[in-house]
Amino acid sequence: MTDEQYMRQALREAQNAFDIDEVPIGAIIVLKDKIIARAHNQVELLNDPTAHAEVLAITTACNYLGAKYLPEATLYVTIEPCLMCSGALHWSKLGRIVYGAPDDKNGYRKYTNISPFHPKTQLTGGILAEECAQLMKDFFKSKR
Amino acid sequence: MTDEQYMRQALREAQNAFDIDEVPIGAIIVLKDKIIARAHNQVELLNDPTAHAEVLAITTACNYLGAKYLPEATLYVTIEPCLMCSGALHWSKLGRIVYGAPDDKNGYRKYTNISPFHPKTQLTGGILAEECAQLMKDFFKSKR
Repeated sequence: MTDEQYMRQALREAQNAFDIDEVPIGAIIVLKDKIIARAHNQVELLNDPTAHAEVLAITTACNYLGAKYLPEATLYVTIEPCLMCSGALHWSKLGRIVYGAPDDKNGYRKYTNISPFHPKTQLTGGILAEECAQLMKDFFKSKR
Repeated sequence: MTDEQYMRQALREAQNAFDIDEVPIGAIIVLKDKIIARAHNQVELLNDPTAHAEVLAITTACNYLGAKYLPEATLYVTIEPCLMCSGALHWSKLGRIVYGAPDDKNGYRKYTNISPFHPKTQLTGGILAEECAQLMKDFFKSKR
């Protein structure tokens, strides 16, 4: 499957978040062409400010594998990770991170010029960026 | 109770981590002079790279209060938060953060000159710094 196809799976997760009134960000983790974790924001549902899609996906993938590092795996997330999630991605030593739309307000790039990720982690941004960003715009517009 | 007394409680948590072979960092969260959360690193136990003391303490405190923000609470942690935990502390909007020893290798200050915390969060560093750092030194020495 291509990056676009996997990002579409992350977008489905983001839509699941939207549908339950959570900030619509979704993530999946892929290992050897298999999706081993799916998650979306559950901050409101769990009353937990740390329950972002990426953190939940990492925890799920590590539980599944019984491993605390994910060097062979790729995480797809619809929006540029925040500082917390970039740190979580650092610790999990993901092989590759692919994000959809940039986030100038809360993305990690606002805070740091140094890559927060593991030195071996590959990074790709901008996959289905418009669709990923549009879902966020629609969500916050509905809140106003 | 004083900052030193509360930090000693966080140090007890760090010792609990040490005793089960986890990186010895401990945290507590205090609200109105009551400890509402205690946690220590459980990365190895849970096989979860996101299971740092601060993240676990925030999740516990939010569960306890049924609230996703902690503006009236103070978190004590034995070591300067990493990037992930500084982001978690940002999202939880803690009233005050008190840490023990600085961490030049993994602390958030390595990555950013901008405060990652909520603008209203007060920050104090250096409480029982030597004891907090010594526990880490003893741990990593035992690993060599």
